[in-house]
Order: sequence, then C-alpha cells, then structure tokens
Amino acid sequence: MSDEERLARVALNRLGEPGDPRLATLVADLGAVRVYDYLRAERDATGVATDVAARLQGLDPAGDLERAQRQGIRFVVPGDAEWPDRLADLDRCPPLHGRGGAPLGLWLRGPARLDDLVHRSVAVVGSRSATTYGVGVAGEIAAHVAAEGVAVVSGAAFGIDQAAHRGALAARGPTVAVLACGVDRAYPAAHRELLAYVAETGLVVSELAPGCAPTKLRFLARNRLIAALALGAVVVEAAVRSGALNTAHWASLTNRVLMGVPGPVTSAPSEGVHELLRARDAALVTRGSDVLELVSPSGAFTQLPPRAVDRPADRLSATDRQVLDAVPVRRPVPAESLARTAGLAGPTVRAALERLRDGGFVVAGPAGWRLAGSSLPGAAGPEP
Amino acid sequence: MSDEERLARVALNRLGEPGDPRLATLVADLGAVRVYDYLRAERDATGVATDVAARLQGLDPAGDLERAQRQGIRFVVPGDAEWPDRLADLDRCPPLHGRGGAPLGLWLRGPARLDDLVHRSVAVVGSRSATTYGVGVAGEIAAHVAAEGVAVVSGAAFGIDQAAHRGALAARGPTVAVLACGVDRAYPAAHRELLAYVAETGLVVSELAPGCAPTKLRFLARNRLIAALALGAVVVEAAVRSGALNTAHWASLTNRVLMGVPGPVTSAPSEGVHELLRARDAALVTRGSDVLELVSPSGAFTQLPPRAVDRPADRLSATDRQVLDAVPVRRPVPAESLARTAGLAGPTVRAALERLRDGGFVVAGPAGWRLAGSSLPGAAGPEP
Repeated sequence: MSDEERLARVALNRLGEPGDPRLATLVADLGAVRVYDYLRAERDATGVATDVAARLQGLDPAGDLERAQRQGIRFVVPGDAEWPDRLADLDRCPPLHGRGGAPLGLWLRGPARLDDLVHRSVAVVGSRSATTYGVGVAGEIAAHVAAEGVAVVSGAAFGIDQAAHRGALAARGPTVAVLACGVDRAYPAAHRELLAYVAETGLVVSELAPGCAPTKLRFLARNRLIAALALGAVVVEAAVRSGALNTAHWASLTNRVLMGVPGPVTSAPSEGVHELLRARDAALVTRGSDVLELVSPSGAFTQLPPRAVDRPADRLSATDRQVLDAVPVRRPVPAESLARTAGLAGPTVRAALERLRDGGFVVAGPAGWRLAGSSLPGAAGPEP
Repeated sequence: MSDEERLARVALNRLGEPGDPRLATLVADLGAVRVYDYLRAERDATGVATDVAARLQGLDPAGDLERAQRQGIRFVVPGDAEWPDRLADLDRCPPLHGRGGAPLGLWLRGPARLDDLVHRSVAVVGSRSATTYGVGVAGEIAAHVAAEGVAVVSGAAFGIDQAAHRGALAARGPTVAVLACGVDRAYPAAHRELLAYVAETGLVVSELAPGCAPTKLRFLARNRLIAALALGAVVVEAAVRSGALNTAHWASLTNRVLMGVPGPVTSAPSEGVHELLRARDAALVTRGSDVLELVSPSGAFTQLPPRAVDRPADRLSATDRQVLDAVPVRRPVPAESLARTAGLAGPTVRAALERLRDGGFVVAGPAGWRLAGSSLPGAAGPEP
C-alpha cells in the first residue's frame, strides 16, 4: 500500500469512530485516499463528512506516525506482511450495535508479528466481575493453550481478560491485548504493568490512535476485533449483560469457533455462558485440551473421551460379574445356593467361581464360597 | 390379561434376573404361560432354563401375589389399565450391559396410579456422592416441576436421587421411586422413611418381587426403567463412573429427552454431565422451567430468553448514546467540543443534547454540558 494510502488511513482512523460501517464501506469502495479527500472537502452523501467535520482541524497523520514510531508504536494496514487477512471477514458481516467492517488499520505495540501471533490463536474473554472460579479456569485454559504456542487474545479488562493474559504470560506463551483506547494508554489504569508485560513479549493492539480514550462505543468496536483476530473465542463467565457476549456474537458472525465454559447454574456470571451453550450452539469446553482440539487442524489434538480408572472387576465377563455379585461377604455358601441367587446354571456358576478364585476375587472353604478381602464392597453399597 | 398369564409373569419375574433380554424376547414371542411351561419342563434352546433351574424349587406365584396384597403391594402387567404403554419402547432397544427389554410386570406400592403419574413425568438422577451444589439444584428442579404436576422419577439412592424425591415431596408433588430390590425393602436402609413417605403419596416401583435384595446387575436393569418410565431424564451430577450415565444412555436409547445440569468444570461430579452435554447432545438445563419447557407439549411452557433489567440508557438511540458517552462527568464542555469528541455533526449533537437533558441524563450550564448525577458511571468504568 502506498505511503499516501497509509497516511490517509491514519487520518480516517482519527476522523471516524472505530467500526463505523459507513467509513469501512466508503473506503472499500473508493480507497482511503479519495475518501479522505472527500471528507476534507466536506462533501459526501453518507453524512460522515458532517459528523467528522469538527475533527478535521489539527489533523496531522504524518506527525501521528512519527510520534508513534518514537514510542515504539507502528501502524499496519491491509497489504502489509503483518496484516492478518482474516480481518476481511468483518467486511462480510452485518453491523452489530452500529459497529462493523474491517478496521482501516491497526496500531501495534510489541515485538511480535501480528500475523504470526494470530495464525494460531484463541480469544479468551469473560466478565469483569468474575468469580475466583472463572478466573482460575480462564488462567488454566490460557496457560494450557499458550504453552502449545496458541496465542491468547483478550481485552486486558479486569476479571477473565486479566486472568487470560496472565495465564499465557505465566506459561511464557504468546498473548495479544486488544484495547478500546490508544496502545500507549493503560485502561484500566491498574493494568499498566500487565500491558507493559504483554507489550514486551506479545502485542498490544488497537484501532484507535495513540492517546485516544476509551468509550462505550469503542469497546463494542474493539470486541469485534478480538473475535475476528482469533480462530475461536472461549467465553469463561458472562452475566446476561456482559460485553463478552458481544464478542461471542462477533465470533459467530465471523464463523469463528464459539466455546463456553459452564459453571454453577446458581452463579450469575455463568448465566450468559449457559445461554450461549444452549441457544447459540457454542461448544462446551472444560479445559485447555478441549480448546486446542477445537481450534487446531483436525486430528492435531484429538482427545479420547474421559475414562475412569479401571477397577479389577471391570475386566470380568458379564457372567462372572453376575456370580461375583451373588457371593456373600462373610458367611460362605455352596455353589448350588449361588446358582439360585445369581439365576445361573450350576455348571456356569462353578466354572465362574474357579475363574474368580484364580483372579483373587473369591475364596473357597469347606462350607463354600465367600468374597476375598480385596473384593469387599465399599461403604457405597452394591450399586454399580 | 388372563389370571394364568399374570401368575406366569409373577413366576418368570422370580425365575429370571430383571432385564434378561432372552426372557423378554421369549415372552414377547410365545407368551408368558408357554415360556413358564417350557422352563418348568427344563427345555428351551436359549440357556434360560438351565440358568433358572435352581430357582424353580419352591416357586409359588399365587402365594407371592397373596402375600404382596396383604402388604398393600400390587403386580401390574401389560394390558392392565395402570400399565404405562411407553415401556414397550424398551423392546425396540438393543441391550446395554446385558440388560434390556420391557419388564414382564411391575410391583407397585402406593396410592397413585402408575399410568397417571408417569403421563407427565421426568427422571431426575445423579451421583450418590453429590455435592451440596448438586443436591440443591436437584431439589429445586424437582420441586419446580412437581409443583406443576410433573412426577419426579428417581432411584431413592443417596445424593441426587434423594434430593429429587425430597424436592417433589416438599412441593406436595408426585414422585416415583424405582428400586433395584423389592418394594417392601428399604435400600439404602437410611431411606426407609423417605420411601415410606413416597409410598404414602406417590409410588414405589420395582421389577423385583417383594423381599428380593439389590445386586449390581439389578441396578443396571432398574436404571432402564427410570429412563423408560419418564418423558425425559435430567442428570444433575455424574462422575465418569456414575450409574446415572447408564440411566442417561437408556434415555437416549428410548428417545427420551436427555438433559444435563452443568456445574463447575473443576468438580468431578459434574464431569460426566459435561460429557453428556458435549458428546451426547444432551440439552443444557439450569432450572425447573427449562425442564418443563422440554418435556411439555410445544408452547405449554415456552420461555423467553433471559433478559437483564433494563437501564434507562438502554432506551436511548445509538446517536444519543454516542453523545452521552462523550459528555464529561464534572467539568462542563461546549457542544462544539462534544461534536469533536463524539465524532458527530454539530447539529446532530445539539439535538441529542436536548433529548438527553429532557431525559435527565445531562445538565446544561453557562460553561456547557456535563453528566447529571444519575448518569455518573459506576466503579466499573466506561466498558458497556
């Protein structure tokens, strides 16, 4: 992309609000340079020009780029090697809450290459008012996938987001923080150190120019980027009003794998996740390996269904088990009596008893058969 | 059904083990009277006769019926008005762990009619080693559905089963306990009072004749009845080895609605439920109303998706919200400055500010506009 186009995109990014679908459509149709020219001439048919008129004064895209560069911040646009092509999926989605479209460009802070990082990546998002349960699970999932080289994308908010970034960092894995303000700012302020750490090893990303403050609308625009940058989104806890559900919606719109971690049905922060699992076809995940299986090429991380530890009696045939079931704990009984109890033929029972004795399940005495010590039932009783 | 057939079924029930698919098939093909004759003559080609030979001695079906009657216990068979026709679904399923087929008859204790009770019913089952969370949720779900007249079917075991029966009883609703031993016995013994209470208002049901003891195999046979008697099965907590998963499997085989209550992913007793939700297409339910919706005729208990409480700002247009977002908390600013911050045209912003002032969201002063007291953001900050 030409320098002129890049500068126009810096300018348009400042003029419009992020995720204004009108601007995205104009740029897709006409190119950033012409749209910028039109807006400067205050003539367009979409109302964008009148909206952004007040912001035209003092616009200095070249200066913006230069100042950013001095802060170690770069601006990437479509066509750059680092640009993740999958962001174009946003141009094929309808707007949601008035936000939509691919970003015109992204401001980046950090040593990693964005395309490398998101090539294998998963968004881990959830409530700011998370529980210790949610924070624990988010951190473990993030650490597990990051340890396998899958980047954890999140929004650096309190609660689940923070746990996700921390989990990835603790596993010395890749992580990407996508902000609703300039990448030079810390929002929330308490996460200044966390963001600095993310910027040291991974990437801090924003559609907003350095210095810009977050607003409600910008969080909604930001959420679409979290969803679109990653291969899938895991929602760990989300109350019915959580912004994480907005991210989940964007994951569905962009055909990303939508995943949800269930929790107690008595816990409000899990209510939104249960709704995703029930009504929005989100995949239920309980651990990092579930997530890896869903966002990896088929077969790369396939798991077997969970199996309990085998007990010795599991390896017995149905008949042998039926006989073992009938053998009394203490008072020995003759084989004929066991045949009656088990409802099996005498010879069948006698053959089974021999096998069970060889296996150490029963012992024989002069008065008949009883359980060996190792087969004594536990306190739970005979239920299987 | 003739008295002869009924007596033959009492006898066959005693001779064979419950859920022996060979016996079910023979009776379906030949009728109980002829199968009983064959077994008494110790001739059949399936091996059943040799298995049950030891039990032929002392068989007294007429005496069984008489003694049961004196205890207030009755024996119902297919064709009786009280017989639930849907049990025939079991004859169309393959055996599971060697058990299968419709029961030859059922022993009942209690004042309710079995067909009435199960006409609208749901099985609520789960781990014996349940958590307080699981017990609480099972009890609440059972109470909710039972209060609507839906019978709660369960197995009277410790943990979830007990909570399910208790929940239904507490709501003065119908409940059915299906046992793996005679209906005159209490298993577990600690539930003698619970079972007596169930038998006072609902029903205690078993395939096994009075006096019979429970065995592992009989629990497996019993589980198929819990599933087949009800319209659907709710699994509340089930570790990977829980018998409740066997009941769940039977619910799937008989095309009953299979439901699961999620729990913390860190809780072993929820692991089996999560597997049902993930891999076996169980429906996720979080409360009694979810269950009612799934087991009731379409439209009878339809729920709307959960909605959070509306906030006043929810009713604002997108533009008005965008302007409200830009209004500072304390230091008033002129409308022109807000146009720049919001990225909207001056006239648009001024019109929005008038509406926001009328709505009590912002106040105007000589220096410009600021938020009204009621619009001050909470501690959670600007994120939506």
